[in-house]
Amino acid sequence: MSYDECYVKSVIRTIPDWPEPGVQFRDITPLFKDPKALRMISDAFIQRYIDSEITHIASIDARGFLISSIMAYHLNIPLVLVRKKGKLPGETIHQEYKLEYGTAAVEMQLDAVTEGDKVLVFDDLIATGGTILAACSLIKELGAEVYEAAALIDLPDLQGSSKIQDAGVPVHSLLAFEGI
Amino acid sequence: MSYDECYVKSVIRTIPDWPEPGVQFRDITPLFKDPKALRMISDAFIQRYIDSEITHIASIDARGFLISSIMAYHLNIPLVLVRKKGKLPGETIHQEYKLEYGTAAVEMQLDAVTEGDKVLVFDDLIATGGTILAACSLIKELGAEVYEAAALIDLPDLQGSSKIQDAGVPVHSLLAFEGI
Repeated sequence: MSYDECYVKSVIRTIPDWPEPGVQFRDITPLFKDPKALRMISDAFIQRYIDSEITHIASIDARGFLISSIMAYHLNIPLVLVRKKGKLPGETIHQEYKLEYGTAAVEMQLDAVTEGDKVLVFDDLIATGGTILAACSLIKELGAEVYEAAALIDLPDLQGSSKIQDAGVPVHSLLAFEGI
Repeated sequence: MSYDECYVKSVIRTIPDWPEPGVQFRDITPLFKDPKALRMISDAFIQRYIDSEITHIASIDARGFLISSIMAYHLNIPLVLVRKKGKLPGETIHQEYKLEYGTAAVEMQLDAVTEGDKVLVFDDLIATGGTILAACSLIKELGAEVYEAAALIDLPDLQGSSKIQDAGVPVHSLLAFEGI
């Protein structure tokens, strides 16, 4: 690991048994309280995509908003929102996905992206991959291409990143944590 | 109005009768799709606070996250999160506030801010002011001072900004829209 990766990893706080017993929750709020860490993670993503072909960032509600807006500002490309159902005005499409118990749904505006767009899907963390896969299917439904799915943290033991790759979407994360 | 204000106002989309009849919803999603508008609004806030005494930005879930993280990146100050109840791990405090029907609550982590901190509260829009006032009372409960409440849009006819000022908190917004 690079110095930056070690530093960022050391700032992330693990909260045992939250939101339920057995889960080691990776709390990224200390990263936003630490200006050096926020610059490190933002700059790592900005450098990765500064000369890429991406035309849009699709940002997943709500923690995904925090880093992706900094990326959009610096990359000078449009940021479009992937929100929980019922939050976006205007004409929308939505996609349901399975949770451990029950289902959830994400939504995008009909004019968010279109044919020819190459979209980076961004969230803070990849766990089971359900939200990102639902976002990818909305982007494809709107005629655009998913360039890559990116997240600050991957939890590979939950196999979300494998599922996203199996669906033909490359995955990039800055950090991986073992366990759930 | 300056050229920038006119430009930004022209990019905001008004959706009539959403989420309910009689409401003119100010849809800011086109601002994030327009790199020039995103730079204009972010830079206006960054310039306002670059030589101020603020030590922290308290960012309100979820649309407040989008601009305030860009501000925190450029101002090199900590960003702390004000989230809907149940979203933040670790030890938290919460504050309820009234909605038209029923109540809602916002939450902060106990270690988000402390005595001596001068905190800017940021949200995308000031309507009735309930969320921002609840955030201000959490910040004061943690011993810190609220420096100012800032938003992209104020809806003065809903009197939220007057209520916030009556509570002793200065208010700054980039744009105002008449009506509700």
